[in-house]
Amino acid sequence: MTMDTALEPHHDGSPLYVSTQHPRLGESVTVRLRVPQALGELHGVRVRSNPDREPRFAVAERVATTPGWDWWQAEIEVANRVHGYRWLLRLADGTDIWVNARGVFNTETLDSEDFRLVAYDAPPEWVPSTVLYQIFPDRFARSDAAAQRVAPDWAVPAEWGDDVRLDPPARSTQFYGGDLDGIIDRLDHLERLGVTMIYLTPVFPARSNHRYDSANFDVVDPLLGGDEALVRLVSAAHARGFTVIGDLTTNHSGDAHEWFLAAHRHPEAPESDFYYWLDDEHERYESWLGVPSLPKFNWNSTELRRRFIEGDDSVVAKWLKAPYNLDGWRIDVANMTGRFRDDDLNKEVRQIIRRTMTEVNPDTILLAESTNDAASDFTGDAWHGAMTYANFTRPLWGWLSEPLSDAGGGLGMAMQTIPRYNGWQFYAAHRQFSAGFPWRTRLGNMNALDTHDTPRFLTRALPGTLPVAVGMSVTLPGIPVVWAGDEFGLTGIDGEDSRTPIPWGAADAASDTIDLYARLIALRRSHSALNTGGMRWVHVSDDVLAYVREDESESLLIVAARADVDITLPAETVNGADAAARSFGDLDLHADETGIRISGTGPAFAVWQAAGA
Amino acid sequence: MTMDTALEPHHDGSPLYVSTQHPRLGESVTVRLRVPQALGELHGVRVRSNPDREPRFAVAERVATTPGWDWWQAEIEVANRVHGYRWLLRLADGTDIWVNARGVFNTETLDSEDFRLVAYDAPPEWVPSTVLYQIFPDRFARSDAAAQRVAPDWAVPAEWGDDVRLDPPARSTQFYGGDLDGIIDRLDHLERLGVTMIYLTPVFPARSNHRYDSANFDVVDPLLGGDEALVRLVSAAHARGFTVIGDLTTNHSGDAHEWFLAAHRHPEAPESDFYYWLDDEHERYESWLGVPSLPKFNWNSTELRRRFIEGDDSVVAKWLKAPYNLDGWRIDVANMTGRFRDDDLNKEVRQIIRRTMTEVNPDTILLAESTNDAASDFTGDAWHGAMTYANFTRPLWGWLSEPLSDAGGGLGMAMQTIPRYNGWQFYAAHRQFSAGFPWRTRLGNMNALDTHDTPRFLTRALPGTLPVAVGMSVTLPGIPVVWAGDEFGLTGIDGEDSRTPIPWGAADAASDTIDLYARLIALRRSHSALNTGGMRWVHVSDDVLAYVREDESESLLIVAARADVDITLPAETVNGADAAARSFGDLDLHADETGIRISGTGPAFAVWQAAGA
Repeated sequence: MTMDTALEPHHDGSPLYVSTQHPRLGESVTVRLRVPQALGELHGVRVRSNPDREPRFAVAERVATTPGWDWWQAEIEVANRVHGYRWLLRLADGTDIWVNARGVFNTETLDSEDFRLVAYDAPPEWVPSTVLYQIFPDRFARSDAAAQRVAPDWAVPAEWGDDVRLDPPARSTQFYGGDLDGIIDRLDHLERLGVTMIYLTPVFPARSNHRYDSANFDVVDPLLGGDEALVRLVSAAHARGFTVIGDLTTNHSGDAHEWFLAAHRHPEAPESDFYYWLDDEHERYESWLGVPSLPKFNWNSTELRRRFIEGDDSVVAKWLKAPYNLDGWRIDVANMTGRFRDDDLNKEVRQIIRRTMTEVNPDTILLAESTNDAASDFTGDAWHGAMTYANFTRPLWGWLSEPLSDAGGGLGMAMQTIPRYNGWQFYAAHRQFSAGFPWRTRLGNMNALDTHDTPRFLTRALPGTLPVAVGMSVTLPGIPVVWAGDEFGLTGIDGEDSRTPIPWGAADAASDTIDLYARLIALRRSHSALNTGGMRWVHVSDDVLAYVREDESESLLIVAARADVDITLPAETVNGADAAARSFGDLDLHADETGIRISGTGPAFAVWQAAGA
Repeated sequence: MTMDTALEPHHDGSPLYVSTQHPRLGESVTVRLRVPQALGELHGVRVRSNPDREPRFAVAERVATTPGWDWWQAEIEVANRVHGYRWLLRLADGTDIWVNARGVFNTETLDSEDFRLVAYDAPPEWVPSTVLYQIFPDRFARSDAAAQRVAPDWAVPAEWGDDVRLDPPARSTQFYGGDLDGIIDRLDHLERLGVTMIYLTPVFPARSNHRYDSANFDVVDPLLGGDEALVRLVSAAHARGFTVIGDLTTNHSGDAHEWFLAAHRHPEAPESDFYYWLDDEHERYESWLGVPSLPKFNWNSTELRRRFIEGDDSVVAKWLKAPYNLDGWRIDVANMTGRFRDDDLNKEVRQIIRRTMTEVNPDTILLAESTNDAASDFTGDAWHGAMTYANFTRPLWGWLSEPLSDAGGGLGMAMQTIPRYNGWQFYAAHRQFSAGFPWRTRLGNMNALDTHDTPRFLTRALPGTLPVAVGMSVTLPGIPVVWAGDEFGLTGIDGEDSRTPIPWGAADAASDTIDLYARLIALRRSHSALNTGGMRWVHVSDDVLAYVREDESESLLIVAARADVDITLPAETVNGADAAARSFGDLDLHADETGIRISGTGPAFAVWQAAGA
């Protein structure tokens, strides 16, 4: 059961409700709950912790009152690195109400949906204020030097304006020749957008345009300009205030990798235990989804760990150090990494990766791909955030896309289709798949409309919903993601088709869309509450969603609608709504003591700034 | 969302739906789904597996039709030891419906609620047909020899008819002197009840009446008759067809245990690393919930593992071997075992325990206490079933008890109270907390109305609901539990008060209640579908719950009601309902082509047997 969302008891991991974002093991932490006075007198409020998995209840006291709300507070001691807790309210009629990360319930709730205090090392402070721009190097931009390079033997050279080919093997071998210096040439564009981080899909030599089949983790592909080009790019990006992260395949290498070549058919090779062999001759091997060019790593190998992820001489460490100075990594297929039949080394591997990064430079970010139900791997012990589609991307498509049966390839949609969701379904799916993440990790999750692996959002979007979708990506907790080209209004029916070379010549024609992105990103960056503020749902209906992001200094009331809007929220939904200033959008807000009425033509996305909580 | 429960698509882990109960890693398993024809034509059915946590979809085919139902089937390969899967149905209107262990949903579902195939060693075949009788030795029965024994120094001797004392320390030291030969004298009573297994709370020497503070795991307490009495008891029980299990505290020992005495204040002792010390002098130590007499084990110690749980010379092994021949263990506070601050060795410890048991005698059972949200530790890798209160005991109390604010101590109820649940809340809580268990483990869970740690059910039961509660314990998936004394109609307001000595002289006066238990246990034992049959909900309302347990040979329609009943189920709910024979209870059933009408006076519990699925 979820109660009426406008006036629910509410808690989350933000500073309004938790006294520290960096709890230590054994530390006493103050937690607070806001309770609508409309619930009536309470006969008790408790916080249930679960130290060593044995429940313990702390008594909460009422400590403050704001218009329409009472605030309750309790102290809890952080007993384990991940300390789960939830709230229990005894109503005057004897009813028990539980409040956890998924919502408000009238039956006992699951441990996996508890709020969480995390006593592992915290991510860098700047993680929640990141706006990410995803670049697929072969398709982003060609420098002058790129034109001089000779395409490799495996490649099918393409002109920049050629259509992307979807037929295998051309979809992997069609080669446009974008390079890292090409990106440097386009940093003005990124400044115009206002993004803060560049995420490069792999830059290591490979035998495909996507380079997820790395042949060597120790050098940057000469076709991209080599090591020096990466040094130039990171240096130029840093000079403008951008961070830059790379992309590592910890699940597999390419079959042209020297480790694989040494080990394949050579059981006696030092690299023999780097992979999973399916026969004694080391002829057949496990590979990513059965694709032979992507042999799967066996993380039982201590030598593999040493070379790739563990310690100062590892691949993980090398590129974070001078002269390269990457600001972190995105990990490919993190969900499968270290998992095969009886083996599950995922936790070990991810913790080693993060430990190595911390030793080299703790001020780095570690994001990880896990496109389905990801939370159980994202406990705060290593990954800072998930590239996942379950909590945002797919529910967003469900709510804002045409229900077509021939699309969705790459989104992980069942039967490659897009089911149609109403607002309640978006809400239910979003909360369900967000609840398992600790707050700090939720703030690091990638809110992507799409990526290089999916169709592009605009391909199937309901007319007029782009501002709604981008607006939600910059206002829901997490890191907004711009997949390069979306701001040009590109479309693509699947993960291959969306890897269109950026049509730089069309920038003028696309200026409205580029400006839309720039304005919404500026909105995000101008409000602290959108980075680290609390997240409170206040309205859910088929066509309209409304929520509040807030901290001590401001409450932002956000409305996303796929149709016309006429909703009225209780007056106490936000403090000082009658004086709220519109920060974005065209909807009307009228607030008085009877309520907050919001109306206008949809689809629409609008934000108002009111007083803090 | 949960659809109307009478005609939902359905799957569970039982033989009707899964081709083997003993899948092996890499094996191909056939899974089946029944779909009500009322859903209309389907545009596709898939099974989503999650090998190495990357989803894969198998195509299902329609293979059979029974009245009102279509049956779909697919093949899946067991990729990991615990292989999660769920069903996806595409309806004619394009809607997607997911079916998982928790129910039927119109949004994507969580991995943790997938159905599961388990490729670990299976439990003994007899586990699901167990009916457990829990005995607290000090309070069950005194043999003639018991009267001759001198109470130990720590004890406060009591006469059998004395009231149980709730005040500390007497609640732990009040000593009635029940013994193991006393149990032998009462085996006729257990035969009359029809139970199949005796579960003895600890029998090792200690300094309390409950003996959870063991001073020595190597001998049976002489106050209980010593080792020879255990040999006599197990032998006598086996001769009558009962199994017998013991109780081990793997979370802690008593502070009088020789290991603790050797290690306390002696950092140099060989047993020093058996416990968690809080200072360098080994003066202060971690203990169970801060109780000093229960120092907590540190399972990082390999020597502790060797002595206690690992290998043929361990405590775990010793008592399963001749001449003792216990049939298994119940593990105390299994949820906390191996967990402290940064440590989580729970999985290691439980797997070692089970491996040792398997080496000694694989035909043994391993149950484990975990009284809250237990499922994540019960993956099928070690524990065969949970003593948990979250999925049955507490929801049952919520539905069938008076909502009193001064009861519930020991049930783990929040604020020591019993919230009032309606039928929907029982259903929601039961399904939520059951969904995380693999099917085989769910069949091993203990369906207890109460235990030695809780108030007794009758204390607060709504009038007339005892047959409903016991009826549900013998018909829902899991092992029915009789806490000795419940069959005498005993009450007790908390876990201490419920440890009343059995009033053997009152057996005649209690004969109606004893007969009720005997009849319901006989019902359980006479229907194979109640042991291993599928479990399908068909009706939920505030006061009435109905479900079907079924296999190829029979479908049992079960109705539990706390008030009068008048419900009508769709005719196709069970096959051949018009010819159904009543197996238990007084409700009326009338079935024809328009539906199955069930009516009568409540509270009521009734079961009808119809043709198999």
